[in-house]
Amino acid sequence: MFEQSDHAKQLQRRLCDFMDQHIYPNEVVYREQLQNAKHRFATLPLMAQLREQAKQEGLWNLFVPPNHAEYSQHGGLSFSDYAPLAEVMGRVMWAAEVFNCNAPDTGNMEVLMNFATPAQKQQWLVPLLNGEIHSSYAMTEPQVASSDATNIELAITKDGEHWLLNGRKWFITGAMHDDCRIFIVMGKSAPEHADRHLQQTQILVPKDTPGVTIIRPLTTFGYDDAPIGHAEVVFNNVRVPLENVLLGEGRGFEIAQSRLAPGRMHHCMRLIGAGQRALELACQRATQRTTFGRPLAKHQSVREDISRMYAEIEMARLLVLKTCWSIDTRGIEASLKLIAASKTSVPLMVQNIIDRCIQLHGAGGLTDDYCMAEAFNYARYCRIADGPDQVHQMALGKRVIEHYQAG
Amino acid sequence: MFEQSDHAKQLQRRLCDFMDQHIYPNEVVYREQLQNAKHRFATLPLMAQLREQAKQEGLWNLFVPPNHAEYSQHGGLSFSDYAPLAEVMGRVMWAAEVFNCNAPDTGNMEVLMNFATPAQKQQWLVPLLNGEIHSSYAMTEPQVASSDATNIELAITKDGEHWLLNGRKWFITGAMHDDCRIFIVMGKSAPEHADRHLQQTQILVPKDTPGVTIIRPLTTFGYDDAPIGHAEVVFNNVRVPLENVLLGEGRGFEIAQSRLAPGRMHHCMRLIGAGQRALELACQRATQRTTFGRPLAKHQSVREDISRMYAEIEMARLLVLKTCWSIDTRGIEASLKLIAASKTSVPLMVQNIIDRCIQLHGAGGLTDDYCMAEAFNYARYCRIADGPDQVHQMALGKRVIEHYQAG
Amino acid sequence: MFEQSDHAKQLQRRLCDFMDQHIYPNEVVYREQLQNAKHRFATLPLMAQLREQAKQEGLWNLFVPPNHAEYSQHGGLSFSDYAPLAEVMGRVMWAAEVFNCNAPDTGNMEVLMNFATPAQKQQWLVPLLNGEIHSSYAMTEPQVASSDATNIELAITKDGEHWLLNGRKWFITGAMHDDCRIFIVMGKSAPEHADRHLQQTQILVPKDTPGVTIIRPLTTFGYDDAPIGHAEVVFNNVRVPLENVLLGEGRGFEIAQSRLAPGRMHHCMRLIGAGQRALELACQRATQRTTFGRPLAKHQSVREDISRMYAEIEMARLLVLKTCWSIDTRGIEASLKLIAASKTSVPLMVQNIIDRCIQLHGAGGLTDDYCMAEAFNYARYCRIADGPDQVHQMALGKRVIEHYQAG
Amino acid sequence: MFEQSDHAKQLQRRLCDFMDQHIYPNEVVYREQLQNAKHRFATLPLMAQLREQAKQEGLWNLFVPPNHAEYSQHGGLSFSDYAPLAEVMGRVMWAAEVFNCNAPDTGNMEVLMNFATPAQKQQWLVPLLNGEIHSSYAMTEPQVASSDATNIELAITKDGEHWLLNGRKWFITGAMHDDCRIFIVMGKSAPEHADRHLQQTQILVPKDTPGVTIIRPLTTFGYDDAPIGHAEVVFNNVRVPLENVLLGEGRGFEIAQSRLAPGRMHHCMRLIGAGQRALELACQRATQRTTFGRPLAKHQSVREDISRMYAEIEMARLLVLKTCWSIDTRGIEASLKLIAASKTSVPLMVQNIIDRCIQLHGAGGLTDDYCMAEAFNYARYCRIADGPDQVHQMALGKRVIEHYQAG
Repeated sequence: MFEQSDHAKQLQRRLCDFMDQHIYPNEVVYREQLQNAKHRFATLPLMAQLREQAKQEGLWNLFVPPNHAEYSQHGGLSFSDYAPLAEVMGRVMWAAEVFNCNAPDTGNMEVLMNFATPAQKQQWLVPLLNGEIHSSYAMTEPQVASSDATNIELAITKDGEHWLLNGRKWFITGAMHDDCRIFIVMGKSAPEHADRHLQQTQILVPKDTPGVTIIRPLTTFGYDDAPIGHAEVVFNNVRVPLENVLLGEGRGFEIAQSRLAPGRMHHCMRLIGAGQRALELACQRATQRTTFGRPLAKHQSVREDISRMYAEIEMARLLVLKTCWSIDTRGIEASLKLIAASKTSVPLMVQNIIDRCIQLHGAGGLTDDYCMAEAFNYARYCRIADGPDQVHQMALGKRVIEHYQAG
Repeated sequence: MFEQSDHAKQLQRRLCDFMDQHIYPNEVVYREQLQNAKHRFATLPLMAQLREQAKQEGLWNLFVPPNHAEYSQHGGLSFSDYAPLAEVMGRVMWAAEVFNCNAPDTGNMEVLMNFATPAQKQQWLVPLLNGEIHSSYAMTEPQVASSDATNIELAITKDGEHWLLNGRKWFITGAMHDDCRIFIVMGKSAPEHADRHLQQTQILVPKDTPGVTIIRPLTTFGYDDAPIGHAEVVFNNVRVPLENVLLGEGRGFEIAQSRLAPGRMHHCMRLIGAGQRALELACQRATQRTTFGRPLAKHQSVREDISRMYAEIEMARLLVLKTCWSIDTRGIEASLKLIAASKTSVPLMVQNIIDRCIQLHGAGGLTDDYCMAEAFNYARYCRIADGPDQVHQMALGKRVIEHYQAG
Repeated sequence: MFEQSDHAKQLQRRLCDFMDQHIYPNEVVYREQLQNAKHRFATLPLMAQLREQAKQEGLWNLFVPPNHAEYSQHGGLSFSDYAPLAEVMGRVMWAAEVFNCNAPDTGNMEVLMNFATPAQKQQWLVPLLNGEIHSSYAMTEPQVASSDATNIELAITKDGEHWLLNGRKWFITGAMHDDCRIFIVMGKSAPEHADRHLQQTQILVPKDTPGVTIIRPLTTFGYDDAPIGHAEVVFNNVRVPLENVLLGEGRGFEIAQSRLAPGRMHHCMRLIGAGQRALELACQRATQRTTFGRPLAKHQSVREDISRMYAEIEMARLLVLKTCWSIDTRGIEASLKLIAASKTSVPLMVQNIIDRCIQLHGAGGLTDDYCMAEAFNYARYCRIADGPDQVHQMALGKRVIEHYQAG
Repeated sequence: MFEQSDHAKQLQRRLCDFMDQHIYPNEVVYREQLQNAKHRFATLPLMAQLREQAKQEGLWNLFVPPNHAEYSQHGGLSFSDYAPLAEVMGRVMWAAEVFNCNAPDTGNMEVLMNFATPAQKQQWLVPLLNGEIHSSYAMTEPQVASSDATNIELAITKDGEHWLLNGRKWFITGAMHDDCRIFIVMGKSAPEHADRHLQQTQILVPKDTPGVTIIRPLTTFGYDDAPIGHAEVVFNNVRVPLENVLLGEGRGFEIAQSRLAPGRMHHCMRLIGAGQRALELACQRATQRTTFGRPLAKHQSVREDISRMYAEIEMARLLVLKTCWSIDTRGIEASLKLIAASKTSVPLMVQNIIDRCIQLHGAGGLTDDYCMAEAFNYARYCRIADGPDQVHQMALGKRVIEHYQAG
């Protein structure tokens, strides 16, 4: 079996305890605080308090990998060690943030760990690691198929000592949040460069820079995903100093590539938790609800479907764990097939599982009295986030065919 | 082919014209008025204006069937005649209300046409037909599997010249609306009656009766479905005169049976329109969006899926039309198998179709910039509304087996 | 509802009577005669007798359409009139042949009715209509994707007063049969012609022409489909007179186009019957078999699945009927979308239905004690026959996108 | 990752070499020998030769587990060590027999290892291990749902020094084979016993015992699965000595339970190989076949589907490996959920995968020119063999619900 280190197992036990004591009992409180919030895109009192608590207990920045151990107190966790922890967090939609392990901050912190200058790290990475601020990654644009990163159009031009940015982005997760202070913006600095993968540059843009305008929050299936949210943002003659470039001019594509694989896997890990919890809720419902004289648990169709969901979650989890093992031992490049397989299989499977668990709950399952509807929305969204599944299937299918055609 | 009368064809042309001139061009306006509304559960100015207009053009109460022709100007439309009209309305989520053809008012009006006393009709049916008020049908209860109507628990007791109602309902569609004035409430007046189908009674309860408390709006997938909405409602010692009974004490189950079949079919008709429109949007997107150097329309996977959706919608539409033909010519009792087949097939098919059309639109497809996410929510909801599919499949499967076992 | 003429209704009644009296009671006899046959690819005594009987009763050549009424005693049946008859025949795999309505003879007779010279008709059409001989249509080639007819490679060259044919064909249905006397062979007479659709010619080749070699029978899923069967055939310097050309040199593609649409619809019609019968068998099984103390009929999963199959067959049947109505009233060209939708939906749906009905029968369902395994094989085969579904979906998807993009 | 021992890895390499040198190159020869065999249910010359060769190379009885190491030369292989070997064998339908690892002999040998007396072992286990004879396990009966073993009806009565057997069995795999010498027969010796699980007894019955009649070979999807095959067998006053009882009177159910779990897992292991090989063939086909001007490999739908199949096989394989790990480390009882999950997921997934790989091959994919059609039949059969999936899903669903209802 896939081995988790003793250290990670111990963290998992502590994490589960924290969930039992502080997260599950507060799900209703959290929902009510958010519903009653004057301003939906701000840190709720409950969240602030739980983050402080998690930090003090050392359940903080658990996503930090071993090669960046210096940024954590836990010494760095491999993908294999982190996956079961992220699964636990995924059981409650807002839990990852409690442990400073939420998207897109985690991905942004990794980018900064990997590519930022010491000054950039001091200014942005340190407060992010401390949980003092949030951040966004601005890549997707409404007018082009952004899953093909070479389509990106936001213009980055050099103007003396500054970069000048002009363009429109959307689905900028986290940008609505009051505590979001910094954007990593992907744009085109050399649109005519012969190598299409050297046309892009990534720039650090403080959110309060003149010319940055948050147009509106976007919704998915009626959810605004507050307080994180997804924003449409316009960059109109936005000017930042030249030193705000990340890694170097023309290296934006390279950064993007490195960033996305871990992000996709983190989504998958958490989705396993979301699906697993829905299954557990369905099992409990099945024993509590009676129709036509028999508890649901005794209907053969319910048993068959529960059995299928059990098998599906198990398979999805194993695929994620194998991919993690592969990344840990062979690196990302050698794991691209498995990463794509996870990205295109897990969200879809989990969406379908949650759909069926909702059905077992009747109309109530669609409301926010349960966690399933929002988790469904999350799974559905992940089939498009980081590129629609079809794009990854194109690449994966091509690789598989090439691998076996010689065979 | 299924024949539509010339009269209905002509109405359909006029309806399509109305959609072209007044509905589609106002979709953005409607969304903005609703987003900016101080109070979400009230008639928007645009809606008020369009309803007036539709009424004047005689595109009003199109759902009224031939046996109640006196309540309409159009002489009554059979299921077969009405289905293509409802499909057209279903292309825009809020369009049916423009023509006074929205749930639950249509079903409630039918109940009143069929079972109300002249005084009851005067008081409630007339203003409903005139579009002056809205109404709700209060059946589902949170604590029991209400799809088995014999489980209903709201207590109805006689107290002198009054009925006394005590209980809790939820998913009471329309109850949130300011203009909702009357509830048809299903409850148990004789819980110990030997015949489980004679225990129920239906009572007319004005919404402003003391003891009626709207607890909260319910959401499905993050949608509050304003301004119609779904409410949780408590009835606490609610007292109404004895003459508010519908049809008679102990006949609540009988009314419920008669009400639900048309309602299910109306949902199916509109969902065909919702699915058809999603398909059309997907086709347009496929020619406008380019990925990896080819328009989506040239990707073989897009073509295959569009072809499947075309076939699925065609089949779903035909099933609905055949069911309508069967109801028209053989009656509801003889059409129960087809009604159940429609109810359990069409929403699921349409949900899946819209899901795929959303995917073709990328992240934008999940937002309210398009009509698909909300239509998805509608289709998903219909798999539970009027009883979860599984309950209808149980009954249908039993009937089919019985039919052929002798065979 | 789709209207069948009184004449067709009456034929259907007589056909059902014939099935009840002569076909169903003989299913075991047929299977045993075939199993014990010295030579599997010959007319069984039972078949010969039943064909004679059907002919005498006027249940003969029912496929003949109204525009070729002179070739039948029944005056020609439209697609709409014929579909319910073909469905009845489809309930038993070998029944269509009893009524001289089996593939590929029907398609070949239509080609001859449409395109043959009087002499050709006299020689081949008359004995086919009389049921004295069988025929084959030789189009598919093993080495190319024959679904793209322009890929066909069999060489047809003029040599003085003769055509010379050289090439290899496979899946030549019927060619194994002793009574098969004539092949319609599609090949390339002008491989360099600028218009790719004028390169092909069709030639009448008597099976006993020197150079024609039957290589082997082909199987699908272990079935040889005797006595009709599918053959691999080599044409080695096969020489036939110039007058054996059909319609004219370079018009092979045109003939192929005209031939295939009816053939696909006939398959679909019969498959509805095959699926319907499997459903009926499943219903009977469900009441006869008990597991874990309850008859299958009382298991909720069985009821749900039976209900789904009922709906699926109904939808598939309606799609076929609408397509027939469209062909009858608007012609084949205007019906191409519906034909492709039928071709790509019905076999797949029926395959899945039969698969589930087999499962309800346990291991016995896979044997030839029931008709389901062979019917499954037929449905599966039809997803490839006349072109793999994907080819038709490509064309259909393209048409639908084009239709709505202007929308 | 799941660890395979070095010893097993080395065996796997040698096994792969053997496949490369002796099995794949002989697939056509094998098919031809079988097609031309006078008697289909006998050891083919090629099989005899390859078995001798495998035995000499020590690739023999690889299924023998560590707790029965004395019966093998390789020291016993755990489930985890054996799974990848069985996967390799599963790539060719008849390969397992070459290594004396085919069903039902493996399961029967395990029963004998576990429960036979020294004399019984000497008489039957030794020649089975040596590959001198074959065997059958007679459990399923045509007239009852045998998946519920308490339904078994074959009567076992004591008559002096003998057992007397009367009843009918079918789907007795291997019984058709000339070299099959011994049946393990499950029947009821105490049909009235209060404990339904103590009513059964298993008896060793030499195939040539008077009263044993092979009625006929059974087919699945047209395959007779020669030379192993599935037989219908009648036991008419079959008399064997009392010492032929296995383990003891009334312990038949206990033996059956112990036998089936490994058998199911062996099927799953081999099916992974069958699915994997179909995928590889599809990849090769995709690069070799061109339709409409592009190789299949460049069609987006082909890439998407190949990518899905890759992910599905990976997940199925991981589920099998985890189940093996669980059996090895926690025992069968603690692994029942995973065993049921494997049994009900893997055959269905592999059937669907092979179905799609066949489609990519066109009509040829359905013939025996490729290995896919027969492998499809095998996968389909496994959804019923050892109990229809639904029975296992009932048990699994019940267990999962019980596990989580406590929360």
